[in-house]
Amino acid sequence: MNNLSRQTRDAIKALQHCHFTCSSMAMTHCLELGGAHARPQHLRLMLDCAGFCAFTVEALGRKSQFHTRFASLCAQVCDTCAKDCAALGDMEECVEACRDCAARCRDIARDDHGEVLQAASATPPGRP
Amino acid sequence: MNNLSRQTRDAIKALQHCHFTCSSMAMTHCLELGGAHARPQHLRLMLDCAGFCAFTVEALGRKSQFHTRFASLCAQVCDTCAKDCAALGDMEECVEACRDCAARCRDIARDDHGEVLQAASATPPGRP
Amino acid sequence: MNNLSRQTRDAIKALQHCHFTCSSMAMTHCLELGGAHARPQHLRLMLDCAGFCAFTVEALGRKSQFHTRFASLCAQVCDTCAKDCAALGDMEECVEACRDCAARCRDIARDDHGEVLQAASATPPGRP
Amino acid sequence: MNNLSRQTRDAIKALQHCHFTCSSMAMTHCLELGGAHARPQHLRLMLDCAGFCAFTVEALGRKSQFHTRFASLCAQVCDTCAKDCAALGDMEECVEACRDCAARCRDIARDDHGEVLQAASATPPGRP
Repeated sequence: MNNLSRQTRDAIKALQHCHFTCSSMAMTHCLELGGAHARPQHLRLMLDCAGFCAFTVEALGRKSQFHTRFASLCAQVCDTCAKDCAALGDMEECVEACRDCAARCRDIARDDHGEVLQAASATPPGRP
Repeated sequence: MNNLSRQTRDAIKALQHCHFTCSSMAMTHCLELGGAHARPQHLRLMLDCAGFCAFTVEALGRKSQFHTRFASLCAQVCDTCAKDCAALGDMEECVEACRDCAARCRDIARDDHGEVLQAASATPPGRP
Repeated sequence: MNNLSRQTRDAIKALQHCHFTCSSMAMTHCLELGGAHARPQHLRLMLDCAGFCAFTVEALGRKSQFHTRFASLCAQVCDTCAKDCAALGDMEECVEACRDCAARCRDIARDDHGEVLQAASATPPGRP
Repeated sequence: MNNLSRQTRDAIKALQHCHFTCSSMAMTHCLELGGAHARPQHLRLMLDCAGFCAFTVEALGRKSQFHTRFASLCAQVCDTCAKDCAALGDMEECVEACRDCAARCRDIARDDHGEVLQAASATPPGRP
């Protein structure tokens, strides 16, 4: 898609899955279970993770010049969410989605000679 | 995932794909081609479509009581975007993503006795 | 700003305020109070309202051709949220933000000969 | 609002203004002017800035535990956008919004003993 690298496309899939899993589980599974699953700080972290992943999908898709910095911070948020969910229990689906997404984001963050940035700075033919 | 129906999960996949395809193609393919592809009204429509799809992913995921109305309007936006892209040409990937998403959203909009609403109104055990 | 009408600018301010109030109160005030304020359906409605308002800010700002339909549905969501919050109690700030936003969105929805659409369809000089 | 500090509320206002200004000007003023204003990299940066500001509004509003890191990166994005817009010319409104937002975000990022984090870690009475 759009000449994005395999690495970027893999990250986008992981981000989409993590976005959906966190936002959906927070507002269904966690709220319905109540108790520790419905603690404010847990739910805020779930929405931080969902929101940052959604933002990063768009940023990678548009070949943002900040793609490594966004991916790096996204990996931190996902890791934190994975640990919180693992400690809480009964959140396996979310733990897995967050861990996979963190790993894919770190791949992007590490690759600072990435094709994304090159593409971003190329001026297409016929534009001023 | 989260006890969502097959129909809802299919719609969510189509919405995620349409969200990414429209937002990415608008800011890469269309802007880089320039000319008619970079006309303001085309790009605004692409971002309307991307933004509404992203919103609807979250709304369906949280079993929103408005799920049929959101899906219905989302289908209209996707249809309009599909037609605009088809008329423009060189937008096949986007046309296909928008058409598929519109069809899946109409499935949700039609199904007004849907499991989503039932789930939304159920009070979990042990909650006031 | 950007040649937007007074009516549109007023709606955007109300949408921004409603977006922030609903998303913030849901994840702080309501979750911290617990009980009926933390019921899944109430919190989902608060996030529906916040999310739709955020989307509509961007749509009006880019002179979307769908501005009346988005504003019309946004008004319905805000009205529903205002009623839910009023019935719950201790949500005055949110009730007021939602009611004001619904009224401003209805102004936009009613005004279907609006300047927004005219601007959207105008092709700027020197563009194909 | 919601016991947020003056500093946080000031940042939220600046973020809302910057979000709206960047997203609206990108899709109206810049696209309509064409030429250098419609170059892909400029428009991508405008949407990076708009999107990150919108995300940060919600994160600060929910007393995110990551508030200093989000604010710090947001300040970098806003600064970069301000410089790009200043170099381009005819973007005064956007330059001012981005600069003000960057300054407010740095206030938050600097204040790492902030009230936001304290509030986030407090468990409300009567919750497990």
